Amino acid sequence: MRIQDIARALMALDEAQIPRVFDALPRGRKVDVFSYLEPSCQYRLLAGMSPRAARHVLSELAPDDLTALLEDLPPDEVRRLLRLLPFGAVRRALTLLGYPEHSVGRLMTPEFVTVRPDWTVTDSLAHIREHSARGETVNVILVVDEDRHLMHTLPLKHFILRRATDPVEKLPPGPAVSINAQADRTEAARLIQHYDIEVLPVVDDDNVVLGIVTVDDVMDVVEEETTEDFHKFGSVGALNLSLRDAGLSLLYRKRIGWLLVLVALNLVGGAIMAGFAETIEALVVLVVFLPLIIAGGGNAGAQSATLMVRALATGDVEARDWLRLWGRELFVSVALGLTMGLAIALLGFWRGGAELALLVAVAMTLVVTMGSLVGMMLPLILQRLRLDPATASVPLVTSAADIVGILLYFSLAVALLELPGTGG
Amino acid sequence: MRIQDIARALMALDEAQIPRVFDALPRGRKVDVFSYLEPSCQYRLLAGMSPRAARHVLSELAPDDLTALLEDLPPDEVRRLLRLLPFGAVRRALTLLGYPEHSVGRLMTPEFVTVRPDWTVTDSLAHIREHSARGETVNVILVVDEDRHLMHTLPLKHFILRRATDPVEKLPPGPAVSINAQADRTEAARLIQHYDIEVLPVVDDDNVVLGIVTVDDVMDVVEEETTEDFHKFGSVGALNLSLRDAGLSLLYRKRIGWLLVLVALNLVGGAIMAGFAETIEALVVLVVFLPLIIAGGGNAGAQSATLMVRALATGDVEARDWLRLWGRELFVSVALGLTMGLAIALLGFWRGGAELALLVAVAMTLVVTMGSLVGMMLPLILQRLRLDPATASVPLVTSAADIVGILLYFSLAVALLELPGTGG
Repeated sequence: MRIQDIARALMALDEAQIPRVFDALPRGRKVDVFSYLEPSCQYRLLAGMSPRAARHVLSELAPDDLTALLEDLPPDEVRRLLRLLPFGAVRRALTLLGYPEHSVGRLMTPEFVTVRPDWTVTDSLAHIREHSARGETVNVILVVDEDRHLMHTLPLKHFILRRATDPVEKLPPGPAVSINAQADRTEAARLIQHYDIEVLPVVDDDNVVLGIVTVDDVMDVVEEETTEDFHKFGSVGALNLSLRDAGLSLLYRKRIGWLLVLVALNLVGGAIMAGFAETIEALVVLVVFLPLIIAGGGNAGAQSATLMVRALATGDVEARDWLRLWGRELFVSVALGLTMGLAIALLGFWRGGAELALLVAVAMTLVVTMGSLVGMMLPLILQRLRLDPATASVPLVTSAADIVGILLYFSLAVALLELPGTGG
Repeated sequence: MRIQDIARALMALDEAQIPRVFDALPRGRKVDVFSYLEPSCQYRLLAGMSPRAARHVLSELAPDDLTALLEDLPPDEVRRLLRLLPFGAVRRALTLLGYPEHSVGRLMTPEFVTVRPDWTVTDSLAHIREHSARGETVNVILVVDEDRHLMHTLPLKHFILRRATDPVEKLPPGPAVSINAQADRTEAARLIQHYDIEVLPVVDDDNVVLGIVTVDDVMDVVEEETTEDFHKFGSVGALNLSLRDAGLSLLYRKRIGWLLVLVALNLVGGAIMAGFAETIEALVVLVVFLPLIIAGGGNAGAQSATLMVRALATGDVEARDWLRLWGRELFVSVALGLTMGLAIALLGFWRGGAELALLVAVAMTLVVTMGSLVGMMLPLILQRLRLDPATASVPLVTSAADIVGILLYFSLAVALLELPGTGG
């Protein structure tokens, strides 16, 4: 059984059983299994361990895994755990935790292997061999000058291709892409994906090597960021933890905020309807078509917001393309609106004759077009304002489209059917 | 300038300029740049090339890149291009294209390096060196028996750690995870993510090695699958191509289907309202609160559907957890409903006294609770039916919640305010 599978099986157990099963694991695999547990599970295990056992686990953990664990804990707990570690490990952990949240510094591991350009292949291989035995990543070696400034990377395979006496500087250099430790971790993900690289060196402002970020770290980041986008887009606050583990009060708090904002927005729609009370009294059948028409606008808006938010997230389109995108969306949405308008015109004719048919068809076309354009522009505007485009959530776009829809529909009704309008 | 950046810059040019700039690239980088272009751009370039130039590009392209290009082309074009290639390359391309769409077979590359357990480290390194020079992936070596059955993998670094005369079977084995070529490519992504491996061997039903899938291929798959989920969740059909490149008629077709389905669903809501026409005539102020209440249910449903769809996609929760999830959602949604009910009760009191306040508060609580439960159950039910949970899109959940909301609100109004009901 592989360590990842043991970790998964362990997390599926009852809380009370987890420490007993963990204790029974062979000593050599404990730390490996521990590193694959969810932070909440790691925390509970540590809380129940003797100081001696906790010290063993913490000091064997890879530095990036230790950072990931500590950053989720309350400050008191961090202090308690750090007291268990030797001074060198504490300094290293605090250095990594000193980088801003979501920065590359928090993600990187400071364990990597460097060689100098004047070393021979034989010398380098001896050096790599030593580090490899200590479990560090050696598939990609960093070439640095005497002041540890990054020059470029070198894939391990280049060392086995060359004659033993060649100096490192004669090997064909690998990519020289690197990233600043203060940069956002999504930028590291973008670079690794764009350049198809396995290991991204992390440097400080003076180009001195501080650590590396590997492709598997980045896959986890991409998954977390996508979850955050998804949640925002459904107007849930970002959870930052598993739905399975989230407490009821956390779930409540993450959801109620947006729901109340949306209530406030829907109040505007209600107020507009109140203004048309006399119109409604004059022709109640109007109300029957209302859910259909405002939902049509909201749904078309949800579609265009979906396309835009995802395209902005993957870098498929950029904010400066807005004019072209806007023009295309106008064409597509008019076509969609006409199709849907025709579909319900028949129904309007059956319920209220030619005039009502015309009203619902025109209203649907306009509302769908407006909804689509709102759904497309909102993410772009948010991006321009340096906010997350995914904040243009489907419920937000739908509510905005509702307001536009109610106003348009009743105004058209007053104009086309010569009904009493706002304020009589 | 790196090849990925050249490719990106090239795609940003006007269509007419692309072939001219591509021709001017140094011969050695042409194929590399070509492999990073979008399929639509590759296709346009090929269409304008002389047969000789096209043959050069196609025969130098990595087999998995060639498969990715051919699978998006119309059959006529595939035949034309295959005629340019030597027989061996055609056979290889057709073998890969013979695997089902979205299968691991379409994703894998048949270029990998194998060694035998009885070879010495020196012999193996000589063999690896030869393949490495030909540009194949050598970071992970596959150990196979004499009939090419997969035994396990071996990281390249293990070869430099050992004495030259040790046989391969004495090296510490790497992971023995593998995947069948017929399996879905998302399964390959899951294995690579779960086991943190770089290279996943692909085998046939007899465990004979056919190729490998690498972590960078998988990152692209994850991105595509997430985009598909995102699009479905916003009730857009999966686009399978860039929003920037998508034609207007494709965009129309991908969107109109769901919009019409939703119109049909919203008709049900309209029909229910028509049934309550007399209730509305008796108290028009009821209609003012309607958008507020049905939007509240839709928004809460959108939130719970979002949480559930994403948690199912990442494997955070499983369908068999439904009872526990349902119980938690009941608690959270009642709390959300009560908060929102209280928020609008005040407004109800101001507009229509204590009775209306009670009505809107009770209706909001019930509608929010029902909406949340619908939003949570729909993805789970779809998963049980072996459909994609993301089909429980926000607009679908919102429309379902609308119907429930309209029915509940007017029924409560009839009951609490003693108004005329359906059919008088």
